[in-house]
Amino acid sequence: MTLRSQVGALFDQPRIQNFILAVILFNSVILGLETSAAAMERFGPLIIFLDTLCLSIFVIEIAAKLFAHGPAFFRKGWNVFDFVIVAISLLPAVQGLSVLRALRILRLLRVLSVAPSLRRVVEGLVNALPGMGSVFVLMGLIFYIAAVMATKLFGSSFPDWFGTLGRSGYSLFQIMTLESWSMGIVRPVMQVYPYAWAFFVPFILISTFAVVNLLVGLIVNSMQDAHHAEDTERTDVYRDEVLLRLAEIEAALKEQGNKGAGPEQG
Amino acid sequence: MTLRSQVGALFDQPRIQNFILAVILFNSVILGLETSAAAMERFGPLIIFLDTLCLSIFVIEIAAKLFAHGPAFFRKGWNVFDFVIVAISLLPAVQGLSVLRALRILRLLRVLSVAPSLRRVVEGLVNALPGMGSVFVLMGLIFYIAAVMATKLFGSSFPDWFGTLGRSGYSLFQIMTLESWSMGIVRPVMQVYPYAWAFFVPFILISTFAVVNLLVGLIVNSMQDAHHAEDTERTDVYRDEVLLRLAEIEAALKEQGNKGAGPEQG
Amino acid sequence: MTLRSQVGALFDQPRIQNFILAVILFNSVILGLETSAAAMERFGPLIIFLDTLCLSIFVIEIAAKLFAHGPAFFRKGWNVFDFVIVAISLLPAVQGLSVLRALRILRLLRVLSVAPSLRRVVEGLVNALPGMGSVFVLMGLIFYIAAVMATKLFGSSFPDWFGTLGRSGYSLFQIMTLESWSMGIVRPVMQVYPYAWAFFVPFILISTFAVVNLLVGLIVNSMQDAHHAEDTERTDVYRDEVLLRLAEIEAALKEQGNKGAGPEQG
Amino acid sequence: MTLRSQVGALFDQPRIQNFILAVILFNSVILGLETSAAAMERFGPLIIFLDTLCLSIFVIEIAAKLFAHGPAFFRKGWNVFDFVIVAISLLPAVQGLSVLRALRILRLLRVLSVAPSLRRVVEGLVNALPGMGSVFVLMGLIFYIAAVMATKLFGSSFPDWFGTLGRSGYSLFQIMTLESWSMGIVRPVMQVYPYAWAFFVPFILISTFAVVNLLVGLIVNSMQDAHHAEDTERTDVYRDEVLLRLAEIEAALKEQGNKGAGPEQG
Repeated sequence: MTLRSQVGALFDQPRIQNFILAVILFNSVILGLETSAAAMERFGPLIIFLDTLCLSIFVIEIAAKLFAHGPAFFRKGWNVFDFVIVAISLLPAVQGLSVLRALRILRLLRVLSVAPSLRRVVEGLVNALPGMGSVFVLMGLIFYIAAVMATKLFGSSFPDWFGTLGRSGYSLFQIMTLESWSMGIVRPVMQVYPYAWAFFVPFILISTFAVVNLLVGLIVNSMQDAHHAEDTERTDVYRDEVLLRLAEIEAALKEQGNKGAGPEQG
Repeated sequence: MTLRSQVGALFDQPRIQNFILAVILFNSVILGLETSAAAMERFGPLIIFLDTLCLSIFVIEIAAKLFAHGPAFFRKGWNVFDFVIVAISLLPAVQGLSVLRALRILRLLRVLSVAPSLRRVVEGLVNALPGMGSVFVLMGLIFYIAAVMATKLFGSSFPDWFGTLGRSGYSLFQIMTLESWSMGIVRPVMQVYPYAWAFFVPFILISTFAVVNLLVGLIVNSMQDAHHAEDTERTDVYRDEVLLRLAEIEAALKEQGNKGAGPEQG
Repeated sequence: MTLRSQVGALFDQPRIQNFILAVILFNSVILGLETSAAAMERFGPLIIFLDTLCLSIFVIEIAAKLFAHGPAFFRKGWNVFDFVIVAISLLPAVQGLSVLRALRILRLLRVLSVAPSLRRVVEGLVNALPGMGSVFVLMGLIFYIAAVMATKLFGSSFPDWFGTLGRSGYSLFQIMTLESWSMGIVRPVMQVYPYAWAFFVPFILISTFAVVNLLVGLIVNSMQDAHHAEDTERTDVYRDEVLLRLAEIEAALKEQGNKGAGPEQG
Repeated sequence: MTLRSQVGALFDQPRIQNFILAVILFNSVILGLETSAAAMERFGPLIIFLDTLCLSIFVIEIAAKLFAHGPAFFRKGWNVFDFVIVAISLLPAVQGLSVLRALRILRLLRVLSVAPSLRRVVEGLVNALPGMGSVFVLMGLIFYIAAVMATKLFGSSFPDWFGTLGRSGYSLFQIMTLESWSMGIVRPVMQVYPYAWAFFVPFILISTFAVVNLLVGLIVNSMQDAHHAEDTERTDVYRDEVLLRLAEIEAALKEQGNKGAGPEQG
């Protein structure tokens, strides 16, 4: 047994996995405490020390796994996920961007890769996405077309809402979520362009209809998966038994036929 | 028959159950009248007397059941539920907190434990929860991560909305329900941090997707239960009959085979 | 054939039914025109004449049906529906309440009783209601309890929103629809009662969960009905055939057994 | 092979189809750039030239197809769709309406007719509509009745919201989407008409119930289609096999019976 496989076996032990899970949860509490000014004032150095300690443990774990599996490490999606999350945590020490500091709490997402039940939920969600592909493309089309039209129609009078493609996209997303679409956006726009409703009401109907279809698709998909899995199992046992018995009866009849035919020919 | 079992049998009678139900409903009306200043001015002492009378009946009922069943009383969830609700009603007399006075209307919830059809609905809802466990944990993760990030990113400029983890959690809950998320929260935040949408729009998409999945899971679960229950019953009768008949035919054939073979051998 | 049954047959003719449908639609347009000040100024007397004419036709139709069927007329739900709607239209002439004038457009609802396809949709909706009974009662409980609590807790500081049971009920309905619940209601309330979220957030979660369950129940119900109807038909034909053939095979075997046994005994 | 069919075959080639798809996507980017003032300032003539070039390609394609298929071209819905979209793009050159310029981005919708997977999604959505017909008619009735009533009841005091049938319809659509219905519309109305909630709350409940039923109908329909397609295929193979075997067994038994009966008679 090489050193590599020994290290790999060590870090695959349930004991080590549970320890990592505990470190992740402990680290999340530490990162939560970091947001409290009072806690930072009192225990600031301790909190930063514990955070660094947790990060070190993650770095050692990832490094050990990288050493154990070599380039094969990156073939598993969840390993890449872990690597990126830990790498992000190491960046702020280098660059000092405050946004990157905020991203460190994403480490808690490592729970998803460690806890099997959560892993399955996330894999279920991700697996559902490709089947929804066409509807997503359709939503993208609707948004792009509506954003270009809104920018051309209302951009000059309402630059804050529809001045650029990006702003139109954001405003249309807000309208699609139905948040203040009428009192906040469309009624003011209708003061200038009285027929603006002829653009926004169809947009709401179409985008809502597309979202509803996404939802319906998701429900039908999971229902069929569940139905299929359960139904097939129960039914197949029964069907196999019916077909087996029918085959036995046929065989018995054929045998009888042969027996019955035998004496006659003799 | 001991006194205990006599008391237990007395309070399990449908007559007594219906009387308790009537007292609960009457008490709810009384507690509703208590909110009316005009009614309190006129009939204040009477209302308080009737409320105390109803509470006394509940206390006697619970005490009798406790005496009848002993510690076993607390083994049933619904009994604990009743006990806690009546206990809450007794507290304000001791402590006088106005919040506890408001909690007394929770007594109406005892209807849930007394009326069988409502009991079943609540049990159905509660039974559906464990299957949703993973998605709830996932929602908790998303909220905790988003709250820590929002506090770090926007807390200094918007202390009212994102100053502490608690405030961020509340604001994110508001955003998840899509209430004034854009006009009320995100647009003002974008005045200071122009890229704030890159945090909030994905948060909305992810949290909505998780909620939709909860919903889909609930629908698929209840559908399967309903489908299973109905389908199984109808199908099993038929299946049993087909398998029975096939077995009879096989037996008949085997017998014939033996008979047919008998004379030939003889 | 008595005069009664002759009148009944006359008004059940498809020609007459279609004529009544046309009158309903024409009357709806007339009632729509009544809302236009410009149209009333120009054609006011004509519009009122045509409306009275339509109403007269309805009154004659109902009177004829009443004469034809006698008290049995009121046994059908749709007849009572028609009668009430026409009766409401006759009231304003007597009392002159402006609200009752507005109710006259409800005549358009008679389309529901005349057009069979709409009739079926409405009957489907109404039939779905009883199955939802328990959840409706549960919603009522939740609302009553929450309204009493909100009135007691916040009524004194926010009389406009929670001053009486009625106002609390309306505000809670608004909160359940998630309209301005946070920015409009709960944040202002939290200025006075910092822990108000501990009342409102659970209320939102519980009431939304109950609504979702209503929805899930509706979906599962209609799905089962549809599934049952379609599945049963297809399956029963097949099942009957399988069971018939099995019976025939058994009969054939018994006959053979008798034949086979006959010679042996002989 | 005539020139007509040669041209038709040429434009049906996958290569040409992919080229058209690429032109559509490229054109969409160009039309997106047109909304950027900075891009227009720098590359304005180039952008307009490229747009004209793309439009020319579309015109040539449509003209060629028209030439190839003759009047039969208009028999396919998707061809009419393409023709109308390209025709709209040619209009502004003639009339110069700015709204028509904004409609040119609708050209991107041609992707729907060219990409088969999107085509199928759209066809699925369109096919689902007729089944929903009755519910749509019902929604129309509810809106018309509510608009007439709201105009008569509240039009005089709130002309901006309920002054005409059109304004009432728009306001009721806003209320149905639950946007600012209470804080924005109903609470102000209740300042003047204290019982306005008795109109708006039922309207919200009924219209939401109708929308929910549309949704449920959609889910049940797609579920049944999916269920039917999958179930039928799997089950029919099995059913055919069972029935076939049963028929064979019967035939074998009949033959045996004849054989068994033959010697006895002889």
